[in-house]
Amino acid sequence: MTGTAAQRRSLWTTPEGDALLVIDQRQLPHRLVVERLDSVAAVRTAIVDMWVRGAPLIGAAAAYGIALQCRVAADDASLAATQAWLDSARPTAVNLAWATQRMVVALQPLPVDARAAAAWQLAGALADEDVATNAAIGRHGLGLLQALAARHPGRPLNLLTHCNAGALATVDWGTALAPVYAAQAAGLAVHVWVDETRPRNQGASLTAWELGQQGVPHTVIADNTGGHLMQHGQVDIVIVGADRVTARGDVCNKIGTYLKALAAHDNGVPFYVAMPLSTLDRRVHDGVAEIPIEHRSPREVTHITGQDAAGALVEVQLVPDGSPALNPAFDVTPARLVTGLITERGVLAATAEALAATA
Amino acid sequence: MTGTAAQRRSLWTTPEGDALLVIDQRQLPHRLVVERLDSVAAVRTAIVDMWVRGAPLIGAAAAYGIALQCRVAADDASLAATQAWLDSARPTAVNLAWATQRMVVALQPLPVDARAAAAWQLAGALADEDVATNAAIGRHGLGLLQALAARHPGRPLNLLTHCNAGALATVDWGTALAPVYAAQAAGLAVHVWVDETRPRNQGASLTAWELGQQGVPHTVIADNTGGHLMQHGQVDIVIVGADRVTARGDVCNKIGTYLKALAAHDNGVPFYVAMPLSTLDRRVHDGVAEIPIEHRSPREVTHITGQDAAGALVEVQLVPDGSPALNPAFDVTPARLVTGLITERGVLAATAEALAATA
Repeated sequence: MTGTAAQRRSLWTTPEGDALLVIDQRQLPHRLVVERLDSVAAVRTAIVDMWVRGAPLIGAAAAYGIALQCRVAADDASLAATQAWLDSARPTAVNLAWATQRMVVALQPLPVDARAAAAWQLAGALADEDVATNAAIGRHGLGLLQALAARHPGRPLNLLTHCNAGALATVDWGTALAPVYAAQAAGLAVHVWVDETRPRNQGASLTAWELGQQGVPHTVIADNTGGHLMQHGQVDIVIVGADRVTARGDVCNKIGTYLKALAAHDNGVPFYVAMPLSTLDRRVHDGVAEIPIEHRSPREVTHITGQDAAGALVEVQLVPDGSPALNPAFDVTPARLVTGLITERGVLAATAEALAATA
Repeated sequence: MTGTAAQRRSLWTTPEGDALLVIDQRQLPHRLVVERLDSVAAVRTAIVDMWVRGAPLIGAAAAYGIALQCRVAADDASLAATQAWLDSARPTAVNLAWATQRMVVALQPLPVDARAAAAWQLAGALADEDVATNAAIGRHGLGLLQALAARHPGRPLNLLTHCNAGALATVDWGTALAPVYAAQAAGLAVHVWVDETRPRNQGASLTAWELGQQGVPHTVIADNTGGHLMQHGQVDIVIVGADRVTARGDVCNKIGTYLKALAAHDNGVPFYVAMPLSTLDRRVHDGVAEIPIEHRSPREVTHITGQDAAGALVEVQLVPDGSPALNPAFDVTPARLVTGLITERGVLAATAEALAATA
């Protein structure tokens, strides 16, 4: 889905199997730059500095990070240290720790000298599984869109999304955008309102880019705009991704998601969260109280990078000298505002009961 | 309040009385550039292109626009044509039409050859009146802040504001920020969360700048962040300005205001709107259905201007080539979400009854 002829995933490996290849997403939509990651340190840097981002994608990348490190040292102590080091790269999304834990649990029973080869295969299987999971999310979400479209015949459905939970946030297809691509394949007309998603603008840069690559009609809006559109009947459904969902259905996702959920609720617009079940954190209940929210550099607020008239990427300052900024990266939408969770096993209610039944 | 030694207002006149002087607010916070406007055409351009913005300030500027045109032609037909031309400059804020109407009503009874001198004086009186009105809003708002501070002793009050309804949006003091400056003068500690206010970033560029000039502690945040801060008890009160308030108390203000009102309501945070009564449009009731919302250029969403490392102002593109954008500039907050209206006559309920009593 990421639009190059040579590959269609957001993460893949060299033919020689000696390195992971990823898109440096910081340079999109202006540059499509592929980076080669051949060590766990390189993988961790790519996660910390957000060359790769999106809960499922950082999980898959971290799995390859463990696999690469197994070629250097694969004993139990090394595995544990690598796991802890990767898990600390980003604190909020649960898929990262989920993926490293799966790797370690699968590798520990094996002889140390068999671990490197097994780890590489296991990481590949985990990536393939992500693709299948997202395809299933797409099928289940398509059912929702088809039912909505039947109520609004003769015009495209208007879907609003926040941040990027598309192909670029996963190995392929995306979570929130998987139903959009499924609709496109099924011939169902969908137009996507793309929140720009300050401060890192993953909507304006990544979601707009991948929708454009796939020929999906879309319009970029400021994050401030969604409520107004909902008041005027211009949004039929909101679908967002998630970085962590609690046992009772609270949804931690990119900062600003909560505001869109409030507006959807106030206007009777269905608000869905697309998530692989790997995003579910069964140990956590009250999302607002319990989930650690990553605070990123204030510079992401005070400065922004874009392309100047000559085609160069330039970082510009937006605030006065001396004005401080705060940059929490995620917020929590209480389960009461969530119409449903689109998972690989179907659409679930955002309730403790429905989520417990998936265990 | 706008921080230059030579003057403290956002709009003033030459000593010779032959032109209006304004700050080109498009260049803040990076450049403080004063422009001389000596014709109604220059004034209208300054309003349309947003060298001056903010409902009260464009009202005062338009009054001077009429005064300048009276020196060219002051007959009834010319007055009516000038009024209509200025009113069409920006459609949403009601103060613009309120100010031009006041000018025309006051000038029409006068002999044509007396109108130019009278108009200049009248525009000055209107500007002085705005300063007095905002000072009164500041006093009434200070009462609210003092009552809140009594409930949270030993720490600064945290106030959140959206866009710029400060000194730069008025002739002086501001509306939403007047209580902040009154608190500062009274020795009451206040910290302001400044929504950057995409797409034009009036918060990050104008509110942060004027608060910095006055030494008021503040922190710039992305528009997405306010809900999260409210969930965590980090906002004691929201105060915003208004471009038009309906007879029943619906509030039209910068796009995104509605989302903050929803979050305040969901978290029990008081949500106040500071407004001169000239912002009240008694002919309009249902704000969502009736108020015309200005749509501005998509380029305000797809591009942004800031200062590069060398100190030059540079416009950069944020979205992929070919991705369209939509840019409605205002939204409407229903009266049910408004705790109160801070006016020059005191704090009023956002109800038809309370507003009718001000007639």
